[in-house]
Amino acid sequence: MPQHDAPNPVNDVRGRGFSARATLADAVRWIDARTAPLPGETVPLAAAAGRVLAVDVAAPVDRPAADRATRDGVAVRAEETLGAGAYAPVLLMAGAATPVAAGQPLPPGADAVLPVEAVQASPLGVEVLAALAVGDGVERRGEEARAGAPLLPAGRVLRPQDVGLLAALGLDGVAVVRRPWVRVLVVGGPRDGGPDVGPDVGPDVNGPLLAALVARDGGLAEVRGPLPADRAALAAALAEPGADVVLVCGRTGVGEDDVAPLALADAGTLAIHGVALRPGDSAGLGLAGAVPAVLLPGEPAACLATYDLLGGRTVRRCAGLDGRPPYTVVRRIAARKLVSEIGTAELYRVRLTADGGVEPLASAAVPGLAAAARADGFVLIPAESEGVAPGAETNVWLYDPSPNALC
Amino acid sequence: MPQHDAPNPVNDVRGRGFSARATLADAVRWIDARTAPLPGETVPLAAAAGRVLAVDVAAPVDRPAADRATRDGVAVRAEETLGAGAYAPVLLMAGAATPVAAGQPLPPGADAVLPVEAVQASPLGVEVLAALAVGDGVERRGEEARAGAPLLPAGRVLRPQDVGLLAALGLDGVAVVRRPWVRVLVVGGPRDGGPDVGPDVGPDVNGPLLAALVARDGGLAEVRGPLPADRAALAAALAEPGADVVLVCGRTGVGEDDVAPLALADAGTLAIHGVALRPGDSAGLGLAGAVPAVLLPGEPAACLATYDLLGGRTVRRCAGLDGRPPYTVVRRIAARKLVSEIGTAELYRVRLTADGGVEPLASAAVPGLAAAARADGFVLIPAESEGVAPGAETNVWLYDPSPNALC
Repeated sequence: MPQHDAPNPVNDVRGRGFSARATLADAVRWIDARTAPLPGETVPLAAAAGRVLAVDVAAPVDRPAADRATRDGVAVRAEETLGAGAYAPVLLMAGAATPVAAGQPLPPGADAVLPVEAVQASPLGVEVLAALAVGDGVERRGEEARAGAPLLPAGRVLRPQDVGLLAALGLDGVAVVRRPWVRVLVVGGPRDGGPDVGPDVGPDVNGPLLAALVARDGGLAEVRGPLPADRAALAAALAEPGADVVLVCGRTGVGEDDVAPLALADAGTLAIHGVALRPGDSAGLGLAGAVPAVLLPGEPAACLATYDLLGGRTVRRCAGLDGRPPYTVVRRIAARKLVSEIGTAELYRVRLTADGGVEPLASAAVPGLAAAARADGFVLIPAESEGVAPGAETNVWLYDPSPNALC
Repeated sequence: MPQHDAPNPVNDVRGRGFSARATLADAVRWIDARTAPLPGETVPLAAAAGRVLAVDVAAPVDRPAADRATRDGVAVRAEETLGAGAYAPVLLMAGAATPVAAGQPLPPGADAVLPVEAVQASPLGVEVLAALAVGDGVERRGEEARAGAPLLPAGRVLRPQDVGLLAALGLDGVAVVRRPWVRVLVVGGPRDGGPDVGPDVGPDVNGPLLAALVARDGGLAEVRGPLPADRAALAAALAEPGADVVLVCGRTGVGEDDVAPLALADAGTLAIHGVALRPGDSAGLGLAGAVPAVLLPGEPAACLATYDLLGGRTVRRCAGLDGRPPYTVVRRIAARKLVSEIGTAELYRVRLTADGGVEPLASAAVPGLAAAARADGFVLIPAESEGVAPGAETNVWLYDPSPNALC
């Protein structure tokens, strides 16, 4: 749960640069110490798929509630079919052979269900063409779940079939972790209007980007901006109550208008400013009041990288999800060298090759989202590594789900 | 696109059983021949993530529109920094060194950007502490994308970062494949009310299950039911216009009230009834008018399996998605034998073991959704296989995304 850190003096890096940066591991630890799943709320089953279960769910009663048929056919006592076969039919009188449909409870006395194909009508009753053992074609009471048996654990991301299972238990609502309310403050506009225009023209990229990312990670995004780079106004927006997480995007660097870190210090605590991660080395962390706040650089590639590793971690953990980026990780052989500076984690956008390898498309220094669009995913080289040698195996985080479906 | 098959005589299997079943491969081919992405519709960017792009998107203009700084610092001519170092500062007069923020266009004449840390103020201008090459700290015009360069292909499932990229192009809407409207007709109720009650009591499991599955696969589900097992009423509901896909769940078997196949024949064509797949061997396919219709067995485990392999394939292909179940596939070593009958595809619900293997939790014969809740995924044994021997490698379809995230 959020906790209030002691205020620390603000190191204003504007015009001076960073004297030191926190490690990515330190930043992750800071987040993990201050985030936990939000309390539960009850939602109807129709809205439950994909939500995170807030409590353990056990079977309230035996399922099924009685022995029942697992197929359409004829319910019998198995011992009465002894010796029956396609060329040796056994006659059962009408009362000893009751038609049942799959799912129906067995009539009293029956302990097996002949499939339709193993029965033929006869004037006196039915002829049985196959011998059965006790329990053939039958699901026993409590076989799916005994009353009290654990079915779904708290923390589970509910699958569609879990929703069906909850419906089978007779529930019409379920307690799930509340979605975090994520205030996204996009500060300043893009600066790519060309040499003849001011710095703050052109479309906002980070607002739509972060809205989609927060929604993906189970948060409810409230995007504001682009906002002016106004320290006092930004501090007020940070301090405003109601948010579970605040993301500030833009104006995190060492330029004169980079007021985001100062505004966060004004609104609470600036715990970390500068992370040894590329792209994204001007990222920051702190508390706005008691609410975790993450400073994301405004350059879109850096915004994406720091969101996935820090901002999204904060959102996902409050949402009850795994803090790691929601990407499948695969092991691949590097087709080319990926170099990295010792002391800094570096993120390469990469492409999977046809022969099962991976190759870099864009280093950490390449800005913009076009490289991420061309990429299949990324390789994150830890701070303690000089990089990945050609022919060495490395983890690849894949942006798309299920790229390796095989059949 | 849907096409109308010639009507074929209906083989009423009620009370007689199936004389033959189609292979799963035939059923898949039938679906693939009759489904294609629906036409496009324009949606705002805020609603675009996760949708399927209907058209190729290219860069309308060079991105960036001008050479620009990739870092906060001081824009200079690289040649004027020649020989500069921490112990050999080079003095630049104020006019030759212009402060820039990351993202800002370079001033005329500048071709490199010194980081803030490599500059110190001096009474006459600035002292430069590092030598630069032309282009250091600069992103060139068109480096992210040249005007006309392809950025995102039709068929792409839009990632959050793609939405950011589209915003960067100045778009506020995008053409995506229309979501299929999926009418779900749940026929009959569950039959597990216990021996002292009728067959059609208890909660509906398949309605909530299918609503969640269809939403997952990009469809808009309209769930009706539980409906009575009334052939004429069901045929009318199948034939009603407005749906892109119809799923009928329940009453597909060989019991007297299994009217779903007959109703589909009445509403158009029953092309396939009976698929050599367990669970789910009473599944069917056909056309309601010209609309693809899939018959799903009412037993929930069979409903889930046949939805994933047949119903969902129909929905996903109309939605512009890959027809395969949206599960990551991994290769694992079978810890125990998985047996299967030649001629029938069998689906085992399985669990990944701690040592990297896979073991069966429930065979195709185990009904209900509790096994799927305990399972990590499933192994589908093809019809031509007798099963998987212990120690052999097999494909595992994983229900949850990203279970193998590593860091």
